[in-house]
Amino acid sequence: MDKPVEKPHEAMASLLAEDLTAVNALIRERMASRHAPRIPEVTAHLVEAGGKRIRPMLTLAAARMCGYDGPYHVHLAATVEFIHTATLLHDDVVDESAQRRGRPTANLLWDNKSSVLVGDYLFARAFQLMVEPGHLRVLEILSDAAATIAEGEVLQLTAAQDIKTTEDTYLQVVRGKTAALFSAATEAGGEIASATPEQIKALYDYGDALGIAFQMADDLLDWMGDAAQTGKNVGDDFRERKLTLPLIRAIAAADDEERAFWTRTIEKGRQTEDDLATARALLDKHDALGSTRATALGWADRAKAALTLLPDHILNTHLSDLADYVVARLR
Amino acid sequence: MDKPVEKPHEAMASLLAEDLTAVNALIRERMASRHAPRIPEVTAHLVEAGGKRIRPMLTLAAARMCGYDGPYHVHLAATVEFIHTATLLHDDVVDESAQRRGRPTANLLWDNKSSVLVGDYLFARAFQLMVEPGHLRVLEILSDAAATIAEGEVLQLTAAQDIKTTEDTYLQVVRGKTAALFSAATEAGGEIASATPEQIKALYDYGDALGIAFQMADDLLDWMGDAAQTGKNVGDDFRERKLTLPLIRAIAAADDEERAFWTRTIEKGRQTEDDLATARALLDKHDALGSTRATALGWADRAKAALTLLPDHILNTHLSDLADYVVARLR
Repeated sequence: MDKPVEKPHEAMASLLAEDLTAVNALIRERMASRHAPRIPEVTAHLVEAGGKRIRPMLTLAAARMCGYDGPYHVHLAATVEFIHTATLLHDDVVDESAQRRGRPTANLLWDNKSSVLVGDYLFARAFQLMVEPGHLRVLEILSDAAATIAEGEVLQLTAAQDIKTTEDTYLQVVRGKTAALFSAATEAGGEIASATPEQIKALYDYGDALGIAFQMADDLLDWMGDAAQTGKNVGDDFRERKLTLPLIRAIAAADDEERAFWTRTIEKGRQTEDDLATARALLDKHDALGSTRATALGWADRAKAALTLLPDHILNTHLSDLADYVVARLR
Repeated sequence: MDKPVEKPHEAMASLLAEDLTAVNALIRERMASRHAPRIPEVTAHLVEAGGKRIRPMLTLAAARMCGYDGPYHVHLAATVEFIHTATLLHDDVVDESAQRRGRPTANLLWDNKSSVLVGDYLFARAFQLMVEPGHLRVLEILSDAAATIAEGEVLQLTAAQDIKTTEDTYLQVVRGKTAALFSAATEAGGEIASATPEQIKALYDYGDALGIAFQMADDLLDWMGDAAQTGKNVGDDFRERKLTLPLIRAIAAADDEERAFWTRTIEKGRQTEDDLATARALLDKHDALGSTRATALGWADRAKAALTLLPDHILNTHLSDLADYVVARLR
């Protein structure tokens, strides 16, 4: 694998600067509310908190790479960012989170009610935006993604603390949490550009694989990473009893004694101070981090393989670098 | 005004029985989830709790009355019911309600998390459903309604306990809570039936006025009604410090001493046992219930006036009776 460019999303942002300016202007315009000033306050807190705009850039890049020259990729990119922002607002309520991107969450600064209702408003604004291009297939793609996201979140909720959770369920949750919006972002960009069915399929495959690699990397970093990079403390997922891939694999390989440990700490939630170290040792014993890393790298490779079916373009190179970048944190 | 038929929505339900069966089948089909069984459990609790299906019937009636003979009014009716159900789930979280339609709420039976996420799923399913007819104007109408609903809810949240709330703000909140979905339901029915622009405008006006009359009647019954009819206890809105029209009018007419009473009980929320009786006496002093009742009856009349621009049809008669019925509770 080539050494990845350091920050490919920054290179993309430079190349797409004009489009991104238009996306940001549209977001600011559409998050306004004539009647309820609470809405733009809450939205701005999140939208202007310096997110990397990866998802809208995926739409812009897919459309531009496939030769699109119209105005509507901007609407679709803003739609994708609104859906993302709405899910973040609701996620923080559901997870009772106090921090996001290093700042207090909206549910902490305002309240859960505001987060629920402003999230609903942004979902509705997203749908209004995506109707404007008048492209029915794009509407299907994005409303399907919204359903997959919500389904994945419910699945995560009900699978939580269940040590029988399978890799299949994990993958479904990951598609809901991350990959569904990535793949809808790229696929919608291809559709609006009237790309060929093969190209659109490749764009979907790229977004799906990139999203999975990205989320697996995130889940791994929770066990390996430093807080500065992830904004989370090592072991947060263990303490919150979240069944991510490393844990699922360690549990699948567990002997009876280990299984009793997981039942106590994850299912029953009875954890003592030493348990994180024990958990980490069990993960190492079964090479659960190493094997998850290999799986994540495999998804990054799949993402790059899909790009070979797409036009030769500087953005294609950046998207390939992005696939390397999301797993580079694991080296 | 003619004496209204006792239960016009039951007469409509008989007439539209075949369509309603199709709507219910579609709802059951689309609330399923391959991956997350929690979703149909929560949804069924609400959808099958014996709601009157007023909103989907409005869509069916509007389409049929305007001569529609295709299959898609069923999709739009199911869309409207899904949007309604999603907002109920989120409302009960925001209001911390424990009862709805005489049964424990989903947030009580499961948890707030499930209500938020299953609500999101139903919003997404609603959008998937409404894309299927491929009618762009209908998509605009329904996504605009979803935005107005969420905006109205946020407005209600931020206006709560603010005794400076105006009648304009109240009307905006009422449009968000109730009238926006009523008017979208009727307007979308007209659009799918390719009704004339005048007819579509009349359908919008009917739904809007019906929704406003309905919500005003509800707000009045909170001060007047019996719990058996409303499922609420008299004075709940006072105890929850909700600024509905009777209160807004009593406060607008208050002298200094009365204003001090409202500031203490509504703004500061310091209520004693006798305060409800005092509040009621102040409402009576300024005829706030009587004048609100007159305003509600005026909106019911506007709803009926709009119907004169629509085809002569048995459903037209039922819709007219429905407008009388929603305010008949106030006689």
